[in-house]
Amino acid sequence: MRRKILSNIHSDKLFEQIYDYLLERIRRGEWQAHEKLPSVRTLATEFNVHRLTVFKAYQLLKENRYVYVKDKSGYYVQPSGLLSMNTLHDPIVSAYVHDSHLSEIHQVEAAFQFSKALLDPNLLPNLYFSEYVKKVFDLYPKVLGTYSTTQGDQELREALCRYFAKHYHFYVSAEELLITSGSQEAIDLVARVLIKPRDVILMERPTYSPAIDVFRRQGAVIVSVDIHPHGYDLHQVETAMKQYKPRLFYLNPTFHNPTGCTVPAEQRKRLVELAEKYHCLLIEDDPYRDIYFNEQPPLPLFSYDTAGYVIYLRSFSKYIAPGLGIATVACRPSFMNYFIRAKSLSDSGAPLLNQKIFLHYFFSERMQQHLEKLRIALAVRKDILEEELSLTGWKWSSPTGGFNLWTQLPDSIPMEELLTKSIEQSITFVPGSICDPQRELKSWIRVSYSYLNEQQLREGFKRLICLIHSMSHAEK
Amino acid sequence: MRRKILSNIHSDKLFEQIYDYLLERIRRGEWQAHEKLPSVRTLATEFNVHRLTVFKAYQLLKENRYVYVKDKSGYYVQPSGLLSMNTLHDPIVSAYVHDSHLSEIHQVEAAFQFSKALLDPNLLPNLYFSEYVKKVFDLYPKVLGTYSTTQGDQELREALCRYFAKHYHFYVSAEELLITSGSQEAIDLVARVLIKPRDVILMERPTYSPAIDVFRRQGAVIVSVDIHPHGYDLHQVETAMKQYKPRLFYLNPTFHNPTGCTVPAEQRKRLVELAEKYHCLLIEDDPYRDIYFNEQPPLPLFSYDTAGYVIYLRSFSKYIAPGLGIATVACRPSFMNYFIRAKSLSDSGAPLLNQKIFLHYFFSERMQQHLEKLRIALAVRKDILEEELSLTGWKWSSPTGGFNLWTQLPDSIPMEELLTKSIEQSITFVPGSICDPQRELKSWIRVSYSYLNEQQLREGFKRLICLIHSMSHAEK
Repeated sequence: MRRKILSNIHSDKLFEQIYDYLLERIRRGEWQAHEKLPSVRTLATEFNVHRLTVFKAYQLLKENRYVYVKDKSGYYVQPSGLLSMNTLHDPIVSAYVHDSHLSEIHQVEAAFQFSKALLDPNLLPNLYFSEYVKKVFDLYPKVLGTYSTTQGDQELREALCRYFAKHYHFYVSAEELLITSGSQEAIDLVARVLIKPRDVILMERPTYSPAIDVFRRQGAVIVSVDIHPHGYDLHQVETAMKQYKPRLFYLNPTFHNPTGCTVPAEQRKRLVELAEKYHCLLIEDDPYRDIYFNEQPPLPLFSYDTAGYVIYLRSFSKYIAPGLGIATVACRPSFMNYFIRAKSLSDSGAPLLNQKIFLHYFFSERMQQHLEKLRIALAVRKDILEEELSLTGWKWSSPTGGFNLWTQLPDSIPMEELLTKSIEQSITFVPGSICDPQRELKSWIRVSYSYLNEQQLREGFKRLICLIHSMSHAEK
Repeated sequence: MRRKILSNIHSDKLFEQIYDYLLERIRRGEWQAHEKLPSVRTLATEFNVHRLTVFKAYQLLKENRYVYVKDKSGYYVQPSGLLSMNTLHDPIVSAYVHDSHLSEIHQVEAAFQFSKALLDPNLLPNLYFSEYVKKVFDLYPKVLGTYSTTQGDQELREALCRYFAKHYHFYVSAEELLITSGSQEAIDLVARVLIKPRDVILMERPTYSPAIDVFRRQGAVIVSVDIHPHGYDLHQVETAMKQYKPRLFYLNPTFHNPTGCTVPAEQRKRLVELAEKYHCLLIEDDPYRDIYFNEQPPLPLFSYDTAGYVIYLRSFSKYIAPGLGIATVACRPSFMNYFIRAKSLSDSGAPLLNQKIFLHYFFSERMQQHLEKLRIALAVRKDILEEELSLTGWKWSSPTGGFNLWTQLPDSIPMEELLTKSIEQSITFVPGSICDPQRELKSWIRVSYSYLNEQQLREGFKRLICLIHSMSHAEK
């Protein structure tokens, strides 16, 4: 069954997967020059594949001069192979930075921006922000001269504790909260603290693409779990936990990115039980909770957790005040100390100014009114996409909240070509394969409806549909 | 000569150093359970030590159940040893987070805070900051709704280019600058992009302690180069570059932390030549440049570099506006792409609000006037320490700029005990060993004069000296 893991990692041929896996480990510097690599037999057993498959991988490594053979006794790391990965002009290939696929698409300037799950700045109460800022300077005149602690402003953490208790029914102390600069930093900290190379983790399929990149960079082996409009197949989750003993399950159970699905309350309870049973941490990423279109979502998994297996990542950047970059991590004290230590090596804590502005704005009356308007505005925008989609006959997942819509195009559409042609027409979207740890789901795309106004949204989406139709006909 | 590296790493006994080194690699997951470890002979050759020394290290690993012996054929990784490092309640020992020694001392609340190289908030033009903030909201009403790009605000980067050209005589384009959240993030990015486990790097001895922690976490082997009031011994630098082929040299050549030394211009030029000759990158950390007490410091190394071997880290957090957390990295485009990619996985760029406030404040007339006052205020504080020191007969390095003073106490003082007793008297300082990659320099301490006002500074320092005297007499 180990073959299963590998086939979850890549969609290439089996020997190419083993080639990639070995090369990755060589690049990480796990073996030194002239060090002996694992035998064909060992690897064949480890992956439950035929020895010939491993042999083919080694042959390719040899051809490409990453390894050499000595006295028929085995394969050894070729020092020149290491060198070529380690030159001044290509510093990274040897290190831990992988491509961030999404960020490449995000660098494209487009009139019809469907790729970024960002809020239209016009939907924020911009006029009022300077009032809060003025208030902060009146209350804390030396705020710009003062560092925050690494863990974050005590006053803010205490206010968040009260908020969580009231709204999410979970009870943490200020010592169990860490303030980070956005959820990306929170995910990165989780990966750095909890993952070492070759640790197995579970992720949803599809999932939040930058999280794939972060865990891959840390050397994780990713096993995926499908997510549907009704949540997970818990049997699949349990089997994966049992079989692969994953270190953690990174999940986004509320208005899931990219599908918009929400995992029901019964499943949440059960997931926490499974986590405890199989000693698998649940990393609950929850950036869209307040953006519901019909009813409020179920409580976070963290609310069901009594044994400390859930680590809760709550970003406030997406729709509260993107420019402040504030998120929080809730977890039990045993983990917190490690997160603080890890964060202290990366920065000196989120800027105090930003934390104080957030504190005074987030807990204001106005903020809560703003959220209501925001839900309506985003529901209207989501409806526009669904109206246009209903004319196409394509399948899509109707979001009950959040910023994203996940839709399947006709199978015949060549995705790379579609993306190129879209960009030529100043339209961007996210190809599904980027959101898939297995890099498949090639006929799906993620369309975000949070950034464009209603008119742009309709016009841009009509154009995109028209382009897809033209390509789909050309195909026939 | 490999023994030299090891004796540079630790101050323990030789076999203990090898024990630590092997345990570290096992913890990193570089060998799997039941995988064979390098032979005694191999390691003895690698480190140029007696086989018995390696044997003793392996015996200790065996006693502690990290390895086992099989059929006399060698040492193998004990799976239970791995497991014990990998439990839920101790998630980190298996991963990449090491202690940040300085941050522990910084957590102590003390009336006489000599340990933090932070600016007294009263020395900042706090009253005027809200004006700049108001200006920012007038100019960019949607600033809180807008993400910066990962690389940083274009307008700020362009302004910095002009500033660097005018003041530092170096010419970069906006594409060659990256905005980070403080210099700690910049160092962390450098380490993540450029270092893989067991890469050798050079660092000054003593040096900026959190940088030691960051490079260690990334798995670097540190070779140290002494720094003196007149700079480096360039022969020592060249020998180290030649012998160890280090990937980079992390250095702080201007008002060096902790010694306050400045590397003269002739040496800077020569260092850049050496870097090019030996393909060793120079990571120039420059957070104190404007805080000079007599004359302006020489130009940065980056100004002398034509071949792209210098990466320049310029923090503005220390004395411009600590609460904004703004720093910049200047480097050639070949590196920049990797830094941007690495940063995009850690956060979404420094908050735009902070970048815009910094932009409008830093380039203002008022800011330049503020710097002049700051230099005078800090020089006065530094003089207070030197007056008190001159009565003791101790050696110290007289700083020509910056925030720190480095002084040697009588050899007989037990440092741990001094720190404990100081903390009891609400006084903190930084023991020299924390600033030493070799963890020696046990009779030195770093005293920062930037945080306390003149009266507190004098009183606190008198108390510290008094305490040291009492311990030094008790010793006799």
